Amino acid sequence: MIRVAVMGYGTVGSGVVEIIDRNNKEVSAASKDEVSVKYILDLRDFPGDPHEGLFIKDYKIITDDPEVDIVVEALGGIELAYKFTKEALLNGKSVVTSNKAVVAEHGVELLKIAKENNCSYLFEASVGGGIPILRPLYTSFCQEKIEGITGILNGTTNFMLTKMDEEGCDYDAVLKEAQAKGYAEQNPEADVCGHDACRKIAILTSLGSGKTVHYQNIRTEGITNISKIDFEYAKKLGSSVKLLGLSRDVNGECVALVAPFMVSDKSPLYAVRGVFNAVMVRGNMVGDTLFYGQGAGKLATASAIVSDIIDCAKNIGKTIECPWKDEEAVMADDSKKVFSYFVRVKKEAFDEVSKALGIKEKVSVESAGDETGFVSEKISEDKFLKTKEDNSNSIINYIRILDVEG
Amino acid sequence: MIRVAVMGYGTVGSGVVEIIDRNNKEVSAASKDEVSVKYILDLRDFPGDPHEGLFIKDYKIITDDPEVDIVVEALGGIELAYKFTKEALLNGKSVVTSNKAVVAEHGVELLKIAKENNCSYLFEASVGGGIPILRPLYTSFCQEKIEGITGILNGTTNFMLTKMDEEGCDYDAVLKEAQAKGYAEQNPEADVCGHDACRKIAILTSLGSGKTVHYQNIRTEGITNISKIDFEYAKKLGSSVKLLGLSRDVNGECVALVAPFMVSDKSPLYAVRGVFNAVMVRGNMVGDTLFYGQGAGKLATASAIVSDIIDCAKNIGKTIECPWKDEEAVMADDSKKVFSYFVRVKKEAFDEVSKALGIKEKVSVESAGDETGFVSEKISEDKFLKTKEDNSNSIINYIRILDVEG
Repeated sequence: MIRVAVMGYGTVGSGVVEIIDRNNKEVSAASKDEVSVKYILDLRDFPGDPHEGLFIKDYKIITDDPEVDIVVEALGGIELAYKFTKEALLNGKSVVTSNKAVVAEHGVELLKIAKENNCSYLFEASVGGGIPILRPLYTSFCQEKIEGITGILNGTTNFMLTKMDEEGCDYDAVLKEAQAKGYAEQNPEADVCGHDACRKIAILTSLGSGKTVHYQNIRTEGITNISKIDFEYAKKLGSSVKLLGLSRDVNGECVALVAPFMVSDKSPLYAVRGVFNAVMVRGNMVGDTLFYGQGAGKLATASAIVSDIIDCAKNIGKTIECPWKDEEAVMADDSKKVFSYFVRVKKEAFDEVSKALGIKEKVSVESAGDETGFVSEKISEDKFLKTKEDNSNSIINYIRILDVEG
Repeated sequence: MIRVAVMGYGTVGSGVVEIIDRNNKEVSAASKDEVSVKYILDLRDFPGDPHEGLFIKDYKIITDDPEVDIVVEALGGIELAYKFTKEALLNGKSVVTSNKAVVAEHGVELLKIAKENNCSYLFEASVGGGIPILRPLYTSFCQEKIEGITGILNGTTNFMLTKMDEEGCDYDAVLKEAQAKGYAEQNPEADVCGHDACRKIAILTSLGSGKTVHYQNIRTEGITNISKIDFEYAKKLGSSVKLLGLSRDVNGECVALVAPFMVSDKSPLYAVRGVFNAVMVRGNMVGDTLFYGQGAGKLATASAIVSDIIDCAKNIGKTIECPWKDEEAVMADDSKKVFSYFVRVKKEAFDEVSKALGIKEKVSVESAGDETGFVSEKISEDKFLKTKEDNSNSIINYIRILDVEG
């Protein structure tokens, strides 16, 4: 018998319990032993819940119980989640989680503790919800040098941008709709400012490179400056605007960035609509691959957690090795980040700004009024930012262009 | 030291040797031991090849050498490949392959022999080339009941259909181009008649269901009846024509089919162009996921083989378990296969045929001449085939419609 303790009975935690119940035959068969939930930790009461007898309020009961093999951390937040995870691992219990904040902040330390205590720390559900992406990275792509990772990693913003694209809505209107549907929180900052995507690309890049990438070192721009007219320009370019988290290995240095991008309809990422997520991985041998699915949602996220539970169950007393080590990745400076930019500029400054950046293509839309758009030559980030600063009164907005080949 | 023997030094076999050379650091690190090629079996000579000293012509040298841990079967064909694989497994050597014909024909038997001899038989590269799809099925989706698998599994036909769609080419012209580019063989039957896709969906479904699905029991229709005008109709329907291999679990019975389908631009499969492959997997918990990448090509296919080599290397003396068992899947009869059909019919027979099948939507294109098109109601396969037979002189062509929801 494999005994699981679930910490936190919110959306994700209750989803995990539901899957262990509903698909118990599959879960137990794959684990080679019956899997059952022994405790559910939550400060709230759930009278009438079919698992009423399992609820506890003191996490010590879990960490002290030698019968518990695997702990699901579905608490959210950082401090308590980190503390409980650490204690569980120190007691030799494997921990699985969808908590990207804890993974991005403390992942490499927790992996080390797991190893020292012959148990595992797994977090497939922390990136891309139900999409199998971390396990393929460390089981199917070990033979590859990972050259690049490009992801639509946040379902909320992808829902919003898709609506703006398909229905010509305004930013404020789609944000309200996303909040009404429960996709966006009342304080939507973590999503719309790109913080969530930033932690996810940090985790992906750490796994892909085997080195630690601190999310704090990744420039992160959200979608709050994106408006209706940007999509009109995008259509002219055969593109759509997507919030991407991306990283590239450039001669052993790491270029990483979270920002809205113009994504051409030639890219498989173009067709990723609504709350779906997708991650493209480029290996030096396999070329481009893409993994697509529900990036959030109760059962999709819980499914990824249960896949980790099964992996832990099959490896009781052992550590499932993770390529992410504590050596720090060398982050490339801005002179090595090269993009083409779509730029909207006041008409009177067009000549000056387009000359400074180099111009590949002019783009006009009917509703432009006093502005004009163009696509710049490829230019390094430091030069672009300098030009932007020098012309802060005349550059209205800019969006990087995803290089489909790179 | 992990010693590998490569049987067959064609495109795939030489690709495997190349990856073990070029990415040796990654391959050996992941394997926790140095990986090297000890023998290359090929009846041809390769004078001047950097591995000249490794070539042998007698497979017995491999099966008799206790130092060889892992054998790559990249011979192609069935009989010899099967015989050599079996002998290697009987001698406790793990075998990895991209040979879908052998896997579809003898997979379950070879898996059993591997288990009895404490070694492994892996075949990630047999489906979807470089796309990690089999390993995710048996490591990331064990907790799922797999409800459906839908794949663009053959790069040659997808290249041809994409050309017909995008450039309005004729079937004969694109076949010639595919042959000139080396995508299609001089005898293109295995690709264009769907036999290749059939073996792949049989393998996928066997892994997804855990039961044996015989490829011989899967109705297989190729793309030889698809012509330019079908794409004109498809455009009117917001669709494209794709050759799909699909399977569905319908109350414990297996519906499986290989055929051209109308795929709506709402489906993520719509955007899969050219030689790329993609596999959608629907789990009862995780919902729809999609795996996309290069379905063929030297290094992509070899990359998947090397991922299997690493897995075997990490499990020397043990068997990597595969969910595919020898219990046979119950195949649904035609009364349980339900699709909508796009049908082209002679104008004078439209009333009769559309009445027999039920009509959802009439579709007209300018170049139609004496025919007209329509979309039928959902109808079971047996009823459809009966109507088709009764109207064989007036039904010009038909294409099933992929239900994006199902």
